This record gives sequence, C-alpha cells and structure tokens, in this order.
Amino acid sequence: MPRISTLNPQLVTELTAILDPKRVLTEREHLLTYGFDGTAALQGEVGVVVFPQTTEEVAKIVRYAAQEKIPIVSRGSGTGLSGGSIPQPNAIVLCLVKMDRILELDEKNLTILAEAGAITQKITEKADTVGLLYPPDPGSMKISTIGGNVAENSGGLRGLKYGITRDYVMGMEVVLASGEVVWLGNKCVKDVAGYSMKDVFIGSEGTLGIITKVLLKLVPRPAAKKTMLAMYATMDAAADTVSAIIAAKIIPCTLEFLDRITIKCVEDFAKIGLPLDAEAILFMETDGHPAVIEEQGKQMEEIARRCGATAVQIAANADEANKLATARRSAFSALARVSPTTILEDATVPRSELTKMIRFIQGVATRHNLRIGTFGHMGDGNLHPTFLTDERNHEEMERVEVAMKEIFDYAIELGGTITGEHGVGLAKKKFLPDAIGNASLTLLRQLKRTLDPDGILNPGKIFD
Amino acid sequence: MPRISTLNPQLVTELTAILDPKRVLTEREHLLTYGFDGTAALQGEVGVVVFPQTTEEVAKIVRYAAQEKIPIVSRGSGTGLSGGSIPQPNAIVLCLVKMDRILELDEKNLTILAEAGAITQKITEKADTVGLLYPPDPGSMKISTIGGNVAENSGGLRGLKYGITRDYVMGMEVVLASGEVVWLGNKCVKDVAGYSMKDVFIGSEGTLGIITKVLLKLVPRPAAKKTMLAMYATMDAAADTVSAIIAAKIIPCTLEFLDRITIKCVEDFAKIGLPLDAEAILFMETDGHPAVIEEQGKQMEEIARRCGATAVQIAANADEANKLATARRSAFSALARVSPTTILEDATVPRSELTKMIRFIQGVATRHNLRIGTFGHMGDGNLHPTFLTDERNHEEMERVEVAMKEIFDYAIELGGTITGEHGVGLAKKKFLPDAIGNASLTLLRQLKRTLDPDGILNPGKIFD
Repeated sequence: MPRISTLNPQLVTELTAILDPKRVLTEREHLLTYGFDGTAALQGEVGVVVFPQTTEEVAKIVRYAAQEKIPIVSRGSGTGLSGGSIPQPNAIVLCLVKMDRILELDEKNLTILAEAGAITQKITEKADTVGLLYPPDPGSMKISTIGGNVAENSGGLRGLKYGITRDYVMGMEVVLASGEVVWLGNKCVKDVAGYSMKDVFIGSEGTLGIITKVLLKLVPRPAAKKTMLAMYATMDAAADTVSAIIAAKIIPCTLEFLDRITIKCVEDFAKIGLPLDAEAILFMETDGHPAVIEEQGKQMEEIARRCGATAVQIAANADEANKLATARRSAFSALARVSPTTILEDATVPRSELTKMIRFIQGVATRHNLRIGTFGHMGDGNLHPTFLTDERNHEEMERVEVAMKEIFDYAIELGGTITGEHGVGLAKKKFLPDAIGNASLTLLRQLKRTLDPDGILNPGKIFD
Repeated sequence: MPRISTLNPQLVTELTAILDPKRVLTEREHLLTYGFDGTAALQGEVGVVVFPQTTEEVAKIVRYAAQEKIPIVSRGSGTGLSGGSIPQPNAIVLCLVKMDRILELDEKNLTILAEAGAITQKITEKADTVGLLYPPDPGSMKISTIGGNVAENSGGLRGLKYGITRDYVMGMEVVLASGEVVWLGNKCVKDVAGYSMKDVFIGSEGTLGIITKVLLKLVPRPAAKKTMLAMYATMDAAADTVSAIIAAKIIPCTLEFLDRITIKCVEDFAKIGLPLDAEAILFMETDGHPAVIEEQGKQMEEIARRCGATAVQIAANADEANKLATARRSAFSALARVSPTTILEDATVPRSELTKMIRFIQGVATRHNLRIGTFGHMGDGNLHPTFLTDERNHEEMERVEVAMKEIFDYAIELGGTITGEHGVGLAKKKFLPDAIGNASLTLLRQLKRTLDPDGILNPGKIFD
C-alpha cells in the first residue's frame, strides 16, 4: 500500500494558483492509485497529484518546482513495467492524461500530432480512418499514453519489421527542467540541422524533460495480413524456424513465441485447444500486398514444417486470425492469474542467441526452484521471462532476485541488454552499470546533470 | 589555396611517437588537399595530417591533444558539403581512411560491422553478396566513408521509403574528447537501457567524439525494381504526381525531380534525349516483390499521366533503368561544369510545401539575377538548389549570400530546415539559430560543453 506524504501547505497553495483546484488531488483516497504503476512489488509515497491541461500549465508547475527544488514525477496511465513513474516522497506527481487531444492528422506529410496524454490506441485508430498505420503496438496500447510510450521508447509485437517508438517520432514539445518549453524536430523526412536532441528525450523516462506533444510518422496501412500458429516439440525447432525465415529474406511483422509453462497457463485460461505437450508455439504474421503475403505465408508454413513443427494452423480469415492471436495476446494475463505476484522481465539478446537464452532461463528456474514462464518477440530477440511468485514470500523473492541477476548477466554476456522495451526506471537501475559499462554510464550521468542540474525530474530513476 | 600552418615541432615529435612516421604528413605538397572538402569556396589551414590504423592510435592522439588542448579535425574522404572537415589553423587533421576494414557480416542478425574509414559502397557491395541491402545511398557513396556518413547522418535518394543513415546505426565505437573509448549500442533490435547516446553522436559532425567503428542494420535486398521517367510542362503537375502517389498509399523508393535549368544542363552534358521544353522531370523507382512493383509501376504511370505528364518512359530492363537513372545521377556533374563555382544547397521542407519552395527559389534566382538549378528528392522534400556562380566575382557572391538567406528563411517559414542531409559545418552555422531557435541552440551548446569541455573536437563548426 503506498504511503501518503505529509504535505507542505505552501506547495498546495501554489499549485492551486496555477491549476483549477479540481485538478489538484490531495485526498488520501484519490492519491493511492498514483503510488503504483504496472510494475509488481514496487510502490511509492504520494502527496499531491496535478492534472495540467495545457503546456503552459506544465511549464508553470515545473518553473515553480525548479525554483523550490521540488521533485516532479510525470506519468501517463501508469502502465510502466520498470517503476519509472513510482513517486518519491514529497514529489509533485504530474499526470498528463488530461492533455489527450489529437491535434492534427496530416495525410500529405504522413504525420499525426497529439498531446502527450493521448491514448496510443486512439492514435492508431485515427490513422486507420485514412488508411494509415502507426506501427508501434506495445501490449498496453489500449490504455497507455503516447507520451509515456515516447518517454519509455516502447516496443511491441511488430518491432522486427517496423521498429520501435523512436523510429516514428519526428518531433516533440518538451518542458525542460527549467520550465522552458522547446520544440524539437519537424515534418521533414530529412533534417540534420544540429544534434538530434529529440533522440535524447525519447526513452529518457521522464528524467530529462516532460514531453507534452509528439509529432509521429505514419505509414500506409498494409493491405493484407496472413496469420499462423506453429506448434513444436522442441524450442530448437521453433528457433530454427525463425532463423530459416530470416535466411529466406522474409521479415514477418510478428514472430512471437510461448514456452511450455506459458502454453499451459494460456490453455487453462483461454481454452483454445493448444497442445499441452508442445515445448514451444510460434505465432507468426506477415503483412503487406496480398500477393506477397500469400507467397510468404506459404514459404513460412513450409519452413515451419521443414524445421519440425508438429502442426501449423493458418487463419483463413480475420476471425480465425483473431482466435490464433488470442494465444499470444493472453500470455501475460494467463500467467498473471496463477500467482499473487507476476514479475514481467524483458531481457533481450541478438536474435541468433535466442535459443541459448531461453534454455538458460529454464535452467535458472530449475536451479532456483522458481516458476518462470517465458514468451516474447522471437523475431527481435526480446524475451519476457515472467516470474510467477509471491512478494510476501521473502525467501522466494530473494531467489527471484538472484535468478534475475543471473538472467541479466547472461543476456549481457550474449551481447544483449537488460531491457528491450520496458525501461530501467527503479526496477533495473542496479543492473544498468554492468549492462552498459562505466564509460557509457558516465555519459548518461553527464547528460542528466546537464539537462537537469538540480535533479528535480523523476529523481532516483535509471541511476542509483 | 589552403594555407600551411607553422608547426609546433613538439607536436610532430609526439605524433610520430604514437604513429609510424610514414603516417604523419607534414610536407606542404602532401597537406594541401586536406585543406578542402567537397564544399565550394571554403578552405582551411593545414599543419599536420595523421592516419591512425587502430582505435588505440586514435585514442592516444586524442589523449595527447586533450592534454595539450590542441584541436582535432577528423575526416574521411573529404566529400562533405558543409565544410565540416575544413581544418582550423594548428589543428591535427585526423584522417580515418586507413581504418577501412569490414570486420563482420552477421547474416543471422542482419548486421554489418566496419571501421569508420570503410567506403560506403564497399559496405553495400559486401551486404549484396548475401542478398542483403544497406539502404542509405548518399550521392558520394562510391568514395565517402561510412564514418563520415554516420557523423553527418547522410541521406540519399531512398530516404522516403528507407530512411537515412541514423535509421541503420545499431552501434558504434567512439573516442571521446578525453581519449576514452566507449562502445554504444549492440545487435539487439530493441534496447532501452539508458539514454540513446549513439543518437547523440550520429550527425554530430565530428564535434562530440570520433567515431571509429560502426555496427549497421541490413535489410533483405528487394527482389525487383521498376524505374520510370516522367516529363512535365509544369512543376505543379510533377508535384501533383508526387502527392497523388502518396495518397494512393504507394511509397516508392525514389521520387526525384529535375527543374528546367537542370534538365538543360543534363541534356547538354549527357545527350540522353531529354525534352528541353520540359519544366520538370520526375525520376521514379519502386522496389520490392515483382508482383507489387508491377502493379505499383502501372499505378504510378497512370497517376503521372492523369496529373499531366507529357510523356512517361518505363525501363523494360536493368540497362534501360540505368539509362533513365543517368538523368538524375548526372544532375550535379552537369550543373557543376557550366560555371567555375557550384554551390550545392539542401534546403528541405515538408513534402506538402515542395511546390511553393521550388517556385520561391525560381523567384529568388530571377530577383537576384542568379542562375540556380534545382533538383533533388521530391519524395522527402529535400531540395538541392544549386548556385552556378563564380567565387572570384565578389559582387555576385554577395547576391548568392542574400539569395541563400532568403531561401533558408522561407524553408523555415514553411516548417522546413536549412539542411536535409549535408550538415551545418562551417557553411551553415550562421543560419542555425534561426532554423532551430534559441532554446534548442542552448541545448546543443550544453551538449557540446558536456562532451567536449575544452572544445578540442572540430572547433568552430555548427556553432558560431
């Protein structure tokens, strides 16, 4: 249960002078939910939550906070999975969900402009109305905000073919730690006038500035999609399939896998007829021109069978595709219901090292007597080892900690990273030095000090 | 003619202790060419040029320079078009062309690792041997180095569909201003462990660090390509074609145009039968699956005719495609031969503003009695207004300066930028403050001061 901070009355007076008092929360029952985000076993202490409606209001709050050296934790819908929006005691929690307008859809330039609090799904839907696609599709997109996606540089299921959030950010409005408002980027496909500051703020997890507007790139919506599910008796056969597809010069939009534990949990949960003796299931989608996906679909099926798939199901229509997608989409929910605490990790390795990593995770689970279901993005090496545990069991949590460190160490050894799409936040900051090395860490710290010299923006995150 | 700096004998002694003396040039006749790059009317003063062969040698040189506060100007083949590698007096010119190895082609992870001095074309060729493509194709790619491309964030003809150099940089080795060597990035498609420092160095024009190795992303080589040339009596009709193609949800890999002056110069030069009464020519290519490009090619032809093309030529085979490509490829050479000085600019606007910008440039030329041929990347709004002038004619050069400022001011007014792919360097630093605004400029300066506190890396570039 998050604690409630004792408030400085002067702070509330100042904030209600900037904002309509209805948008300044100080009542205990209103505050509690802002002490959490989507990360298991982490909570913070909340004193006040503000809901600005304009960039100018954000800037005024930041200027006041800068002057008084009060920490600010910005957040959207709070779906983060690394504790990036868990508040520090006495911080102002600045929630951007009331800045949720889509401001412009520019079909000629293939761009969309939105306020940071706009829900990602709404952006996708808006683009879709004119036959365009906003490709990043993080699992949380139905409720997460686009500002949160940009601040975390969110991934999703389509990373292999379409890339990640960073690849679609053409511009942004940011409120700096001083309260100054700056616009970075534009609608030009090419622009090399000076260092790319927008890339500094993308993925900065609220620690360098507060993103208030984003200008995103759109692409034509693919005309068709082919969806299939392949079952395997061994993880190696599934991994061979992925390698053989890439070697055939096919880049599917989705290449997802579930391991045995995840398959069992999904089947228990969704009853869709998954084979409980399968060691791995691949969920594969290719999108594009109908002729191409027809051809690629056939090739992918052949490859899957050649590599030892025990069965391949191909969706004949959108309904069937949706049914197959259920297997992958319900993976996290299915795992989450079997234990009180579900810790969703995202260790990531180069695609070529995936089988080694999965096998290592299974070994870790056995060695430490833990339940770890693994699923994730096989096409881009982004794994989600998911710990099914109970945070009240301190002894087990200690084993989880040890196991996690072993997994991250091995991911790094394989040329990978401690986080593919969830961010560092609070949850992984102790692993960051080993992941990127001291020289890189020094660069990060220098950048933080430069852009936020008093350390008021989301302090205590990313770095220890 | 570049001047030769008077040398500090101690400097040469130190450098020859670090490097084989054969790789330390101090003779006047060897130095002269290092006072230039590809930018017209700019030259610097050279004292010593060094050719390191390893990262450790680069690091030693930088450590020595850092200690003595001697400026370092790094360069590759010197094809830059904004004076980014023009040396300052007394600087060490550090030329990376002897670090030109391709170190690894990783087919499983679709990556290629090379030293900074590797020629871009060699990287493309190496990828091609296994059916892969390195998409960025700056005009200079036959001789420019990949390190230079990354330092300038080079563009090319395929930007609309494939993006620019930044989109393909997965990792890099950089020697910092302190002489410390740091590796940034990895082979993971997704990685959000900390701020993206590699994006800070991409496009930093040698002012923040010296890039010594690059890890690049490759994509499957498209199976086929359709090439066509469309002639127009008005620029509006050509621009309408581009808009209609995008509106039809087609993203061609190349959508290039030539204006009347460029057409005339190309025809005089290459004698390929271009219509001299055309106001504009579009060079268009679509690549991908044969069935798709067949269909898209037909659609593009129909759109071109519907929008008023007076003729459309479609290449029946690769030879014919090469012939059509000559029109666009020879644009710069054709313009360059008609006057002693050719100033190639790259004002860039959102695609929707292209016609306005081209018309404005034509008006500027008339108003200031200048010859400006304009060609460039119509698909991504990246224009190359090319001044055909004579740097010895001071009065005309003054008009060129005024015209250039008017063009950049208007590009900014239209939501564009002063440089789409050439960089700021020396040539455009006076235009940068208006282009990005004071708040952004402050961020850039802060970043520079943070990463190069003594200002030894390529001083005097980007900022005034």
